[in-house]
Amino acid sequence: MKPEKLLRKMFDAAVEAAQPKHTIAAHLPKPPKGRTIVIGAGKGSAAMAAAFEKAWKGPLQGLVVTRYGYGMATKKIEVVEAAHPVPDAAGRDGAARMLAMVQGLTKDDLVVALVSGGASALLSLPAEGLTLEDKRAVNTALLKSGAPIAEMNIVRKHLSSIKGGRLAATAYPARVETLIISDVPGDDVSAVGSGPTAPDPSTFEQARAIIAKYGIEVPVSVARHLAEAKDETPKALPHARATLIASPQKSLLAAATIAREAGYKPLVLGDSIEGEARDVGFVHAGIALQARRFGQPVKPPCAIISGGETTVTVRGQGVGGRNVEFLLALALKLNGAEGIHALAADTDGVDGGAEVAGALISPSTLERARKLGIDPWTELSNNNGHGFFEKLGDQLISGPTLTNVNDLRIILID
Amino acid sequence: MKPEKLLRKMFDAAVEAAQPKHTIAAHLPKPPKGRTIVIGAGKGSAAMAAAFEKAWKGPLQGLVVTRYGYGMATKKIEVVEAAHPVPDAAGRDGAARMLAMVQGLTKDDLVVALVSGGASALLSLPAEGLTLEDKRAVNTALLKSGAPIAEMNIVRKHLSSIKGGRLAATAYPARVETLIISDVPGDDVSAVGSGPTAPDPSTFEQARAIIAKYGIEVPVSVARHLAEAKDETPKALPHARATLIASPQKSLLAAATIAREAGYKPLVLGDSIEGEARDVGFVHAGIALQARRFGQPVKPPCAIISGGETTVTVRGQGVGGRNVEFLLALALKLNGAEGIHALAADTDGVDGGAEVAGALISPSTLERARKLGIDPWTELSNNNGHGFFEKLGDQLISGPTLTNVNDLRIILID
Repeated sequence: MKPEKLLRKMFDAAVEAAQPKHTIAAHLPKPPKGRTIVIGAGKGSAAMAAAFEKAWKGPLQGLVVTRYGYGMATKKIEVVEAAHPVPDAAGRDGAARMLAMVQGLTKDDLVVALVSGGASALLSLPAEGLTLEDKRAVNTALLKSGAPIAEMNIVRKHLSSIKGGRLAATAYPARVETLIISDVPGDDVSAVGSGPTAPDPSTFEQARAIIAKYGIEVPVSVARHLAEAKDETPKALPHARATLIASPQKSLLAAATIAREAGYKPLVLGDSIEGEARDVGFVHAGIALQARRFGQPVKPPCAIISGGETTVTVRGQGVGGRNVEFLLALALKLNGAEGIHALAADTDGVDGGAEVAGALISPSTLERARKLGIDPWTELSNNNGHGFFEKLGDQLISGPTLTNVNDLRIILID
Repeated sequence: MKPEKLLRKMFDAAVEAAQPKHTIAAHLPKPPKGRTIVIGAGKGSAAMAAAFEKAWKGPLQGLVVTRYGYGMATKKIEVVEAAHPVPDAAGRDGAARMLAMVQGLTKDDLVVALVSGGASALLSLPAEGLTLEDKRAVNTALLKSGAPIAEMNIVRKHLSSIKGGRLAATAYPARVETLIISDVPGDDVSAVGSGPTAPDPSTFEQARAIIAKYGIEVPVSVARHLAEAKDETPKALPHARATLIASPQKSLLAAATIAREAGYKPLVLGDSIEGEARDVGFVHAGIALQARRFGQPVKPPCAIISGGETTVTVRGQGVGGRNVEFLLALALKLNGAEGIHALAADTDGVDGGAEVAGALISPSTLERARKLGIDPWTELSNNNGHGFFEKLGDQLISGPTLTNVNDLRIILID
């Protein structure tokens, strides 16, 4: 199999392993005496809703919010589409209706929450005294700050009426069962989608510290809200429980299996590799070159695989994303080394600022770019990863995958 | 053995493997009919000179330049001490004398060059029309720019009368045999100490591009020299040959052996890992946590080992270095994870701006710091790694090791 084809096959296997239709039936909660309300949000929530209603025996009603273009035909659970990563009124109104749906329940009722990555931006119900505009301003600043996702979400949880366990607190005394497609390091269930149904260990004080650390400018109303620190997130929710139905690690292992079958020894570095995307690319290049030169840490033919979510400190004006920034840096450091191909892509099909999942590189990437008059270093400095790979014709366009287990990076070494 | 003790033993083994006294006798050149002139520069040059004159049977004379404090008693080869990393007049005068020593030789003569890391700054003879002050200004700006060492050296080679093969060109027609202790990625002999005796593939054009890429401000005389681009470095030197007597990889393997003997499975990631030190720390943390959680890419008890040279983009006012910046970031991302200890240090005994090789971390590092009222994130933002570890009493102080195979990073996982 050609390296490009194998890489794409590994990506497809990783995405497939994260599809709720394959995994949700094994994780259905015990049916309740009373009503079943299904709610949820995230890039995978429509697919989760469709899979759930197909597998569930009893009556149910519900509402989930997903990203524009990530909707799917459902019979019983309403699907609302909204904006991501910067929230809009559709998401706010969906969140308000969802919160209303879980009010006034009894302990005989069941709330099933279908949560996946992206829920944080999609379920955006401002705390009292704040507007959607306030939240959008903070969100935009957070996305540009270079702060890791976990820290962004601590801030978001403390500006919300629904995140950080507030949705589950509202549903009390009904039982709350959350099914999760995880896209966060360590699969911390309070972090996925800012954990609307999970107890939240973070505090207003931490949110303020993060704002200060990254020098993020926030509206006056937001600063006041964080300073007043009223209505802290719930620290315990004994009526709520969470189950992981898909995760980065499971998807990395699915990709690893494909590599092994094709005769490439897989080495999984980690499911939650973080750091500035270009530097993560440099480190991966160092490991790949070591494999080529010394047969360490793994002997070729091999596949070095990692997941997680890097960050990009935006300095340029280009159209970029974490994965293409990583790849461009990787290509530069590999400098055309023979027999090394790589893929980096977001399993949700969208890497940063374009409807493109990621891209692929080969030993000829830099040379082909230079022949087109494109200087790869300049492109990297301008954070123009998508622009770069578009011009080369090496983008990976998958369309919306309707799931999200974060990024997938594969370096294939012959 | 306690983790701290094992880490230190691994560091000592890595340094010991790079000592010329153990390796130089196996790599002596064929004696010449004529004279033998020994020259050289670098942090290891005094130790190399002492080892060489002990092993060499015939007559010889010579001169090497090393860093202040890195001198060593020798009988035949004069040792001059000079400033590093910002050059001074002692280094310039040493370089001028060295260049004079290799002039007027015949093809029956032999020049032995003893080159190790640091030679670039120590052997600083400005090109015609430039002053030492010009070179110091450029050097200081380069060190602060975040440019990788290979790029810094391309600039240095094009401002010099001795670097980039010019020394070997001057020695022609004498045979030139270079013995090298490598501290550069891929052990590229033209890069170690800016390769005074190796053909140089880099060009004035590349030097100008690097100046532009990092926005480095240079004196007018330097800009003019680079623009005029007269007297390009030699691209071929058939009378010169180079042999590696110590390298990062050899030292990593020595450390790995100690780990294996102590029951920790070693995994060598690479001998030339580059990137911003803090992000390299984040990636190493992700790999270590994966090992703890999933037994991948290596199952504990294990030792994750890497070498190479990271960079620090200086933003703060603290006293820092690559290795302590790496460690502080690693500790923050590990966040007290149980059973993980680490060491990062420069094998030459000096990490950045202090006479300290590096430091060690343990699961209690962050907690102990916070009890002392020190915020680790603030210290990292301020590039104050040495200040941080000094307050904790966790510095690794080896004194000058008289060799230099770059950085050593070890994560020990129980």
